[in-house]
Amino acid sequence: MLPVQPLTKEAFAPFGEVIECQGAENFAINKGFTQRYHKLASVALGQPDDAAIINVFRSQRWPHPVALTMVEQHPQGSQAFIPLDKQPFLVVVADKDTTGQPDKLQAFVTNGEQGVNYALGVWHHPLLILAKQQNFIVVDRSGSGNNLLEVDLPASKQTTLDINALVAQYLETN
Amino acid sequence: MLPVQPLTKEAFAPFGEVIECQGAENFAINKGFTQRYHKLASVALGQPDDAAIINVFRSQRWPHPVALTMVEQHPQGSQAFIPLDKQPFLVVVADKDTTGQPDKLQAFVTNGEQGVNYALGVWHHPLLILAKQQNFIVVDRSGSGNNLLEVDLPASKQTTLDINALVAQYLETN
Repeated sequence: MLPVQPLTKEAFAPFGEVIECQGAENFAINKGFTQRYHKLASVALGQPDDAAIINVFRSQRWPHPVALTMVEQHPQGSQAFIPLDKQPFLVVVADKDTTGQPDKLQAFVTNGEQGVNYALGVWHHPLLILAKQQNFIVVDRSGSGNNLLEVDLPASKQTTLDINALVAQYLETN
Repeated sequence: MLPVQPLTKEAFAPFGEVIECQGAENFAINKGFTQRYHKLASVALGQPDDAAIINVFRSQRWPHPVALTMVEQHPQGSQAFIPLDKQPFLVVVADKDTTGQPDKLQAFVTNGEQGVNYALGVWHHPLLILAKQQNFIVVDRSGSGNNLLEVDLPASKQTTLDINALVAQYLETN
């Protein structure tokens, strides 16, 4: 069973950016009526002709228990997830071993307002949510060539997530 | 007094993209647990070294009545606003006259879930909200050189918005 830790900028730094206002550079614009929390994340693009695009992901909760048997990465761009429904979600990432393959998994839970931006090439699990359904703004890359690598984890690195316990711990209602 | 019309893709097309799932290309990913509403908007960047960045704007409502006396544009990039609080907001844009200066103003109100992506170089008014405070994800451009042009409207093109009436009409509570 994979333990889940609260998401912080420090712990997530090797994998990308946490998108949150807390602690971010900010300044007033528009005659003082708007505070800009600036550059919480930057979109990385692999090729000169790539474009950053804005999408919505409408996600369903995976059944309990979640078997973590694979991860994916995007070799041509970063990918940001920002929750639209003020609910926490899970962020499962993997280190790279010396050959670039996924190594140890780590799981984080967001505070309901945080988003994440997976850096280009970071191994991560597909989106896992705690509520039954959640919508996200996703900012990622459009361009030519393959931008999705998926690998099955060797049995020694597979693990599970106790979704029922996480829902009970992190959601007020499910 | 400037009239306000509901925001639609068709009416807003000359100014940029409406970010909404309705009517958008979508397909299943992640073993069917996520529906991707694809490429609702694309980030435009003016220069090869520019980057798309993700920010949060925390905005306060302007006092009633709002005098529309100026507009701005970003000559080096698009700028997208996506609401995080499920509240409608106002989208005020201007056509260009034959010299590129702002011409007739138009105002739209979103349905609470819609976002917009102002195309590069489109004249628009700074963010105007109906709730007392609202947070937005903003996706825009980071790079060198000036990316903000502001112009005062000639008196003949200035107008006002009856914010009190709009709040009463479009917000359940204010």
